[in-house]
Amino acid sequence: MSTALSPLLAPMLSSAAMRAVCDDATTLQHMLDFEAALARAEAAVRVIPATAAGPIGAACRSESFDIAELAEAATRSGNLAIPLVKALTAEVAKADSEAARYVHWGATSQDVIDSATMLSLRAGIDALLADLDRAVAGFANLARTHRNTAVVARTWLQHALPMPFGLKLAEYAAALHRSRKRLQRLRSEALALQFGGAAGTLAALGDNGLAVAGQLAEELDLPLPDAPWHTHRDRIAEAASVFAIIAGSCGKIARDVSLMMQTDVGEAFEPAGAGRGGSSTMPHKRNPVASASALGAATMAPNLAATIFAAQVQDHERSAGPWHAEWPALPGLMLVTSGALAAVVDLAEGLEVDAARMRLNLDATGGLIMAEAVTFALAEKIGKSDAHHLIEAASKAAVAAKTHLRDVLSADAQVTAHLDAATIATLFEPMAYQGASQALIDRLLTTLDQP
Amino acid sequence: MSTALSPLLAPMLSSAAMRAVCDDATTLQHMLDFEAALARAEAAVRVIPATAAGPIGAACRSESFDIAELAEAATRSGNLAIPLVKALTAEVAKADSEAARYVHWGATSQDVIDSATMLSLRAGIDALLADLDRAVAGFANLARTHRNTAVVARTWLQHALPMPFGLKLAEYAAALHRSRKRLQRLRSEALALQFGGAAGTLAALGDNGLAVAGQLAEELDLPLPDAPWHTHRDRIAEAASVFAIIAGSCGKIARDVSLMMQTDVGEAFEPAGAGRGGSSTMPHKRNPVASASALGAATMAPNLAATIFAAQVQDHERSAGPWHAEWPALPGLMLVTSGALAAVVDLAEGLEVDAARMRLNLDATGGLIMAEAVTFALAEKIGKSDAHHLIEAASKAAVAAKTHLRDVLSADAQVTAHLDAATIATLFEPMAYQGASQALIDRLLTTLDQP
Amino acid sequence: MSTALSPLLAPMLSSAAMRAVCDDATTLQHMLDFEAALARAEAAVRVIPATAAGPIGAACRSESFDIAELAEAATRSGNLAIPLVKALTAEVAKADSEAARYVHWGATSQDVIDSATMLSLRAGIDALLADLDRAVAGFANLARTHRNTAVVARTWLQHALPMPFGLKLAEYAAALHRSRKRLQRLRSEALALQFGGAAGTLAALGDNGLAVAGQLAEELDLPLPDAPWHTHRDRIAEAASVFAIIAGSCGKIARDVSLMMQTDVGEAFEPAGAGRGGSSTMPHKRNPVASASALGAATMAPNLAATIFAAQVQDHERSAGPWHAEWPALPGLMLVTSGALAAVVDLAEGLEVDAARMRLNLDATGGLIMAEAVTFALAEKIGKSDAHHLIEAASKAAVAAKTHLRDVLSADAQVTAHLDAATIATLFEPMAYQGASQALIDRLLTTLDQP
Amino acid sequence: MSTALSPLLAPMLSSAAMRAVCDDATTLQHMLDFEAALARAEAAVRVIPATAAGPIGAACRSESFDIAELAEAATRSGNLAIPLVKALTAEVAKADSEAARYVHWGATSQDVIDSATMLSLRAGIDALLADLDRAVAGFANLARTHRNTAVVARTWLQHALPMPFGLKLAEYAAALHRSRKRLQRLRSEALALQFGGAAGTLAALGDNGLAVAGQLAEELDLPLPDAPWHTHRDRIAEAASVFAIIAGSCGKIARDVSLMMQTDVGEAFEPAGAGRGGSSTMPHKRNPVASASALGAATMAPNLAATIFAAQVQDHERSAGPWHAEWPALPGLMLVTSGALAAVVDLAEGLEVDAARMRLNLDATGGLIMAEAVTFALAEKIGKSDAHHLIEAASKAAVAAKTHLRDVLSADAQVTAHLDAATIATLFEPMAYQGASQALIDRLLTTLDQP
Repeated sequence: MSTALSPLLAPMLSSAAMRAVCDDATTLQHMLDFEAALARAEAAVRVIPATAAGPIGAACRSESFDIAELAEAATRSGNLAIPLVKALTAEVAKADSEAARYVHWGATSQDVIDSATMLSLRAGIDALLADLDRAVAGFANLARTHRNTAVVARTWLQHALPMPFGLKLAEYAAALHRSRKRLQRLRSEALALQFGGAAGTLAALGDNGLAVAGQLAEELDLPLPDAPWHTHRDRIAEAASVFAIIAGSCGKIARDVSLMMQTDVGEAFEPAGAGRGGSSTMPHKRNPVASASALGAATMAPNLAATIFAAQVQDHERSAGPWHAEWPALPGLMLVTSGALAAVVDLAEGLEVDAARMRLNLDATGGLIMAEAVTFALAEKIGKSDAHHLIEAASKAAVAAKTHLRDVLSADAQVTAHLDAATIATLFEPMAYQGASQALIDRLLTTLDQP
Repeated sequence: MSTALSPLLAPMLSSAAMRAVCDDATTLQHMLDFEAALARAEAAVRVIPATAAGPIGAACRSESFDIAELAEAATRSGNLAIPLVKALTAEVAKADSEAARYVHWGATSQDVIDSATMLSLRAGIDALLADLDRAVAGFANLARTHRNTAVVARTWLQHALPMPFGLKLAEYAAALHRSRKRLQRLRSEALALQFGGAAGTLAALGDNGLAVAGQLAEELDLPLPDAPWHTHRDRIAEAASVFAIIAGSCGKIARDVSLMMQTDVGEAFEPAGAGRGGSSTMPHKRNPVASASALGAATMAPNLAATIFAAQVQDHERSAGPWHAEWPALPGLMLVTSGALAAVVDLAEGLEVDAARMRLNLDATGGLIMAEAVTFALAEKIGKSDAHHLIEAASKAAVAAKTHLRDVLSADAQVTAHLDAATIATLFEPMAYQGASQALIDRLLTTLDQP
Repeated sequence: MSTALSPLLAPMLSSAAMRAVCDDATTLQHMLDFEAALARAEAAVRVIPATAAGPIGAACRSESFDIAELAEAATRSGNLAIPLVKALTAEVAKADSEAARYVHWGATSQDVIDSATMLSLRAGIDALLADLDRAVAGFANLARTHRNTAVVARTWLQHALPMPFGLKLAEYAAALHRSRKRLQRLRSEALALQFGGAAGTLAALGDNGLAVAGQLAEELDLPLPDAPWHTHRDRIAEAASVFAIIAGSCGKIARDVSLMMQTDVGEAFEPAGAGRGGSSTMPHKRNPVASASALGAATMAPNLAATIFAAQVQDHERSAGPWHAEWPALPGLMLVTSGALAAVVDLAEGLEVDAARMRLNLDATGGLIMAEAVTFALAEKIGKSDAHHLIEAASKAAVAAKTHLRDVLSADAQVTAHLDAATIATLFEPMAYQGASQALIDRLLTTLDQP
Repeated sequence: MSTALSPLLAPMLSSAAMRAVCDDATTLQHMLDFEAALARAEAAVRVIPATAAGPIGAACRSESFDIAELAEAATRSGNLAIPLVKALTAEVAKADSEAARYVHWGATSQDVIDSATMLSLRAGIDALLADLDRAVAGFANLARTHRNTAVVARTWLQHALPMPFGLKLAEYAAALHRSRKRLQRLRSEALALQFGGAAGTLAALGDNGLAVAGQLAEELDLPLPDAPWHTHRDRIAEAASVFAIIAGSCGKIARDVSLMMQTDVGEAFEPAGAGRGGSSTMPHKRNPVASASALGAATMAPNLAATIFAAQVQDHERSAGPWHAEWPALPGLMLVTSGALAAVVDLAEGLEVDAARMRLNLDATGGLIMAEAVTFALAEKIGKSDAHHLIEAASKAAVAAKTHLRDVLSADAQVTAHLDAATIATLFEPMAYQGASQALIDRLLTTLDQP
């Protein structure tokens, strides 16, 4: 397949489904689908002879056209539609020279190209939705499994407090679910037929312009906008932004996983697989290869989206330049977004969790991670201020003596006067100090199931 | 006012209303609003003494705090909330040392900063909505006024066909209206309270976390999300993308106006004003100063949005770095978007249209711009193919002889056999060849009025 | 060819020479060139048997490897080098199983990939230099031809003053020449061998590390850096920035040409060609197709460069993610830069200039464009202040009466008292008011010829 | 100070020195410096009366001008120079109305603004050079101190091999040193006077244009370019790219430090300081606040540079829009680059290294990190293939038994037949397997000292 990512790199950075959507042959076919639908629509409205639609439709098969030739010709015409229409006309003429006269009737290059883009967007959205479904389901399952697995919550890359790992996973699911909603909205609201003729007035179709447009929209199953939108690219920009948001969410998740996979942390791992992420001379290594793909893709997506935003500044009724920038940038963005998401699906469905190591890491600071919990417990007995000072001193003592904070406290009469040994032990149980976590998990998971 | 644009440049590139929203003092006040609301909420839920909320709320006035001091202290703490909470505590303590103990109770820096960002976003959205209303109304009015004013439609910066200027203007209104819808949706769906405590579990509030969160959301009139969203920045990214889309639409409109204002075109002009855009030594100049501001802002917006997208990749429960990038980038984006839009409001409400020059320019190609119209008319008589060849030859003849195409055709017996002089004259009336334009204008304008 | 631009779009947005450089097969060959050179170097330093280099070198032919298979395997290994080395080893083993043991000896994946990138950069720089030579020469020639052709200088898209068209053209040449210097410097200073082994210490080569590195650098004709630079990507970023600068300069030139080609301006045109930029139904159109390609490419380049900059933030000794982002972004940038430049070469070598229309346009403001010239001439007689007021009034009168400023002045006794008719006529000769233009042209052209 | 970063955020994200450079008052003063120098130059060349230069120069003090008023007026004129020149003229007229007539003589707004930008760039470069000197020296010192401190080299965030920490530090110094060279080159080659008058021809100065330009360049100590470069912004783009490269290198270093500071790693730390990066309720935390600032700044820099690249596409002799985008983006970029660098200076001069923890972490994989070293040692005795298999099996055994690889090997007769206990022990000494590291450190440090 030939896409905006070279074949050598594409599998690492995109999903197979999206490569199929963004393949040159598919692009061509989407353009041809427009031409076939246009002929049918115009025949239905009697703008062209009823007999023309059949032969035109029959010729609209991408296999019949030479990509390299079209690409070369496009350097002279400035877009792909002109040589394609010419080649299509010739193709139709082979079978029916009369029908050939009605190819592309009343349409302009931008009608073909933009409507084809809309068809590609729709297919691309569907490809992403399928993967989002899997990723959301995967993380939701993991969240349920690990709703009582204690893990270190880290802020600024420092141990902060304990949290149930399931909360983290439910948040992943929820973030992706929000973008699923965005994609669904995009699919129903932001797609729109492009059909305006040479200058956006449908002049060449006389009084039949809107009728043809309506019929064509139905044929392509694309919403009919109020008017052609040639140089108003806000819908395209909106699609691009949702893709970039998805890539960003995937990047966040991949960053977390790559950090958890660190040899120094070892809490969660990408699914293992034959020859995956290993090293023969460094047997302890387990490289976060899926996460790296997601992060690489997420590094590209913001700037591809920026290109689409920048390309909004299009002059008059058809621009000379910015439109060209969309052509590779939009599929490029769709591809890397799909790659980030595919990697995240991989994580969502195969994450290996080392709960024992998580528990071990919670103890790495010798109980200091529970200092807040103990302070609050003690505050109920002796007031917040005294509790705070007492625990602060105890923490320092524990660090200095390299002992566990629990042991320092258990040996402190000021503490044991209020808290017995069992209570102290409980206070150092990470999941005894998880606040609203369980309710938050429920709230997050419940929303996932709503339509 | 001190914002992400320096005072020397801010008026050229932002609206006064948005500068008020993004002003440092406002930012501080939004953070203090959070602290005051938190105290009220926690008092209501009886997490802190009822008597603490009053003194805390009373101290939450931005004028009491020294911006330079807070900014300097933030270099050590890594964020503004820590020194602000410290200063606020001291401020409350002046009046009520007991209440001072309950400042910021159970909250974390990110709760304050992100919720304040949400308040800023809401105010910023409202500022943009007010200007969008004006711009949409302005262009809609202009569209009605000029629905029969003929103008050259230009593709690739070349004369293409005639179109009613009102169609172009209605499209401007519609594009901005679509973003008005986007902003409204953003306002109702993408804003969300941030409240999770140190690690997003609300642990410090024990069993009261969700109750406080619910009350706090009500106090601030912010939607309560399913869970804290500390390092899931998709909502912020969504807001950023809508701003960038608006800036892009404004850039498109400004590009058009700057092109129409060219000395060589002279079809439409920014509103004149004392000392505006003129030059004393070059008396013929009328610089597109508002358009330039809009285009300047639109050049910045895509990359500011890209920064926000890139900053989505945040690690674990609070990131070290990307979050910082949002702080200047998001208000920067809000400002330049407001600047682009303010310039466009200026155009929408004061565009000066030179209909006579538009008509003159339509004639600049000696009737060639109507070649398609004439071809279609003749095709009805002699078939498309013959008509095409005939008009092609006539066009070449007209160019060679530097005469008007109408005159060449009127002297051509092949033509006059089918079209009489009056018909030919009519065919060269630009607005006789406008296709579905009037219907399109109606469709566009009707949608603007729908809720 | 398969590159970071899909075959369907690549010809419009890149040069054939650069497509050859960025082709997947070339990328593979560059990686294989590294492996072959490594074997030769290690044999020379006696790290591997002298007999191993031959068989390894013989197997290093990209045709022997299956791109799709390597790409698929790379999804598991996280980079292309691992499956390539495996496949190469198997390939060598077919002929010489002993030699196969020494493939990739002591090297790491990043050594191969980064050094191959350097080879691609060098080839890409050479491709750009060849086109820059042509563009500089073309514009220099045009500058000489048109050093006395008067054209309107436009500021803010408004007529400002006259200037010789040759000055504009010489500035184009000079801007491109400055980037030619940048590329030459890049070629000699910013390229560097990557060779560090698993962790950048060359540990696996014991005491022979630096000797092998030195020999390898010679084999590949790449400068030997002080040390491996695995995660320090400043050289890559520097190359990217020069490419983006070139694309920007091309965009500027293309913008100018597209504006001069406007139907409303008509001063200069892209070279005509069979079927180029025309429209059959709109015979007057001459679309700026090369300029549009350049502008499209220039819209993409800044954000591709931004991706490379963003990818500088790489962790420790080999990053997981940002490096991946470079892989498609760097060739993508090289391609679009080549496309922008190829389009500009086209302009530089074939620009059609309509000097008569330029002269006509200079008169479009009825002599107002010469108001400054007349003011200065009159100021010498009656003082600057009086002259200014007099010409200001005369300009207004000319505009009001729709007459030429020259005629107003010729009829003004206050003027004719100091300037006779011939003098007045001369003052309205555009090229009589060109200041230092001729000297500036000379200065610019002279610099082009310096080494 | 008022800059492109708001006062509330500026200290966290920029250096004080750069804030002084980018302050509005400084910007104004640079513009006034141009006007004063212009008057002196024109007086010297006798274009204006010798008596005019004094009063003009005397009035060129930024304190005399009202920033808010100028900013407001600029919204009508489209740039700051027009109201400033007007205000300056009025200011000069207070003292000498005759001299006031010669303010800004023959110059255009862009001359003032762009030349002032060059003065700001020079001052900004100097500010960065001062910090680069400190950072390079700091890391070089640390490299010398730690040239024998063993640390884990990490690839893909996984333990790879040991390396001397000094090598890592020397690479930091070297990367920053390369950018020091870039800045020095920029300072001597990329700065250039802007002086062209209304249209870049110096027409208003008749035959004196170049003489004035030469004198003015000397007055401002700015290189005289071959010609004005109004809309050729490649020099600005080059400066921007060097800034972005520096920010990127700082981001890389900051990422490393933030990773090393992880509670889970604990190898190196930002300098401690009163109230710095700590948390009262989480006593174990030590937040990487400087690193976060650097990473935040580095997240912004690529996109600010992209804005500058995008703004290269300027039309004709003065653009309407892109130029405006440079005004906030360039100082914005200078500021965040300074902030990233200031944070890195902080690290370079105060990094706290925990060599014991580094050593501990090297052991975390139970000797597996030395597997490659042992394999190579054994390979000399029994061949590479056998050694590889033997160590692979031993590694698996060590992991399974949770014992140290050394112990497994010491108990393996196949190994002890060739390696005695002391040799085995030595093989597990990390710094016994550092390859060319010491030579590489020397090479890197030597280059730093070269001019």
